[in-house]
Amino acid sequence: MEFSSKLLENAVYEMSQLPGIGKRTALRLVLHLLKQPEERTEHLTHALSKLKNEVNFCRSCHNISDTEICEICANPKRDETLVCVVEDIRDVMAIENTSQYNGLYHVLGGKISPMEGVGPQDLNIVSLINKVKEGKVKELIFALSSTMEGDTTNFYIYRQLEGMEVTTSTIARGISVGDELEYADEVTLGRSILNRVPFENSMKAN
Amino acid sequence: MEFSSKLLENAVYEMSQLPGIGKRTALRLVLHLLKQPEERTEHLTHALSKLKNEVNFCRSCHNISDTEICEICANPKRDETLVCVVEDIRDVMAIENTSQYNGLYHVLGGKISPMEGVGPQDLNIVSLINKVKEGKVKELIFALSSTMEGDTTNFYIYRQLEGMEVTTSTIARGISVGDELEYADEVTLGRSILNRVPFENSMKAN
Repeated sequence: MEFSSKLLENAVYEMSQLPGIGKRTALRLVLHLLKQPEERTEHLTHALSKLKNEVNFCRSCHNISDTEICEICANPKRDETLVCVVEDIRDVMAIENTSQYNGLYHVLGGKISPMEGVGPQDLNIVSLINKVKEGKVKELIFALSSTMEGDTTNFYIYRQLEGMEVTTSTIARGISVGDELEYADEVTLGRSILNRVPFENSMKAN
Repeated sequence: MEFSSKLLENAVYEMSQLPGIGKRTALRLVLHLLKQPEERTEHLTHALSKLKNEVNFCRSCHNISDTEICEICANPKRDETLVCVVEDIRDVMAIENTSQYNGLYHVLGGKISPMEGVGPQDLNIVSLINKVKEGKVKELIFALSSTMEGDTTNFYIYRQLEGMEVTTSTIARGISVGDELEYADEVTLGRSILNRVPFENSMKAN
C-alpha cells in the first residue's frame, strides 16, 4: 500500500497492530476518524491512555477494577468459600451475565502455553494457592477453555493444591441448550453422556 | 455488558464508536492493548492525534499530503490535462496501484447524498470547476462508484461544466478479468456488451 502521507501511513500502521485489524480496515478506521469532529479522536486517545495509565487490578482476584478491591470481592453477599478460576476478565463478564453464580473469581490472566512462552510464573497462580492456604476457600471451580493449554493449566494448579483441603471441580461440558444431538461433535456428546445429571437438576436450572 | 471498571467501560465505548467495531470486538482490542507494553498504546494514540491535528490536504487535488501540494500534483512527469475525479483517498491509492494512470486526481471527499445530508457544497466541487475554468484540463474521468449517489454526483458536475471546453468520460464497467459470464449480473453484462472495445485494445492492456 502506497501512502501519500507519512502521518497517515504511521496512523494506519499503528492501528493495524491491533488483533484482527488488517491494513485495509485500519485505513478505513483512520479515514473515518479524520472525517469526524476532532473530539472523536481526542476522546478515543484519551480513554485509551487513561485506561492504560490508571488501570488497577483487584488485589484479591486480579479482575480489572477502579478500586483496590473489586466490587465482586467486596460484596459481603457473595459466597467467599467458592472461587471460580478463569482466564481473563471477559470470562468474569460472561459468567456474571448468567446471574447463576454467587461465588468469587480468580483471574489467571492467561493459560500456560509453552508455544507462546507463557509459563506458570506469568500467571496469577501463586496468589491463588496462597488464597487456598489461608483456608477460607472450600471449592475451586476451573472454568478455563477446554484446550490443551487450558487442561495443562488446570492440571498444574491441581498438582499445586495437593494436600490442601479444597474441593476442585470444572464447569460441565455438554451439548448447548437448544442444539441438536446429530450435529454435536463426538467428544462433547461422549462427555455429556458420561457426566449426565439427575433429571431433577435439569429442571431446576430452567 | 456489565463492566467492573469505569475506565474500561469508557475505553470500550470510545473504541466501539469506530465503524464495524462492536462492543465485543472493542473489548477484545482494549484488553489486547492492556496486555501489551505501554509504548503500544502511546504510539497508537500519538499517531492518531498527530494525524488529526497536523493532517494537510493537497491544495490542488485535496488528497491527504504532508506537503502543501501532494507528490502526484507536484510531479512534472504526470499529465496535467487529465484529471480523474474520485470519492476519497482510498480510490487514489487503488488507481495508483494499477500503474496504468499518469494523470492527476481530484478528491471530492464524498458523494452527493440527500439521505445522509451531504450536498454539493460539502464536497470539493467548486475547486474542480475552477480548475477546469483555468483551461489546462482537457479530460475529466469520473471514477465514482456506480450507485445512485455516484451517478447523481457525476451528473451534477457534468451540468456545472456545460459550455466549458472539456471532455468527460467514466471508467469502464464490465465483467471483472477472470470472472465467468454466467455468474455476472445482467446490468454489468449488458453494459459490457454495449461498451465493447476493439479486440486490439484488450490485447494492449495485458
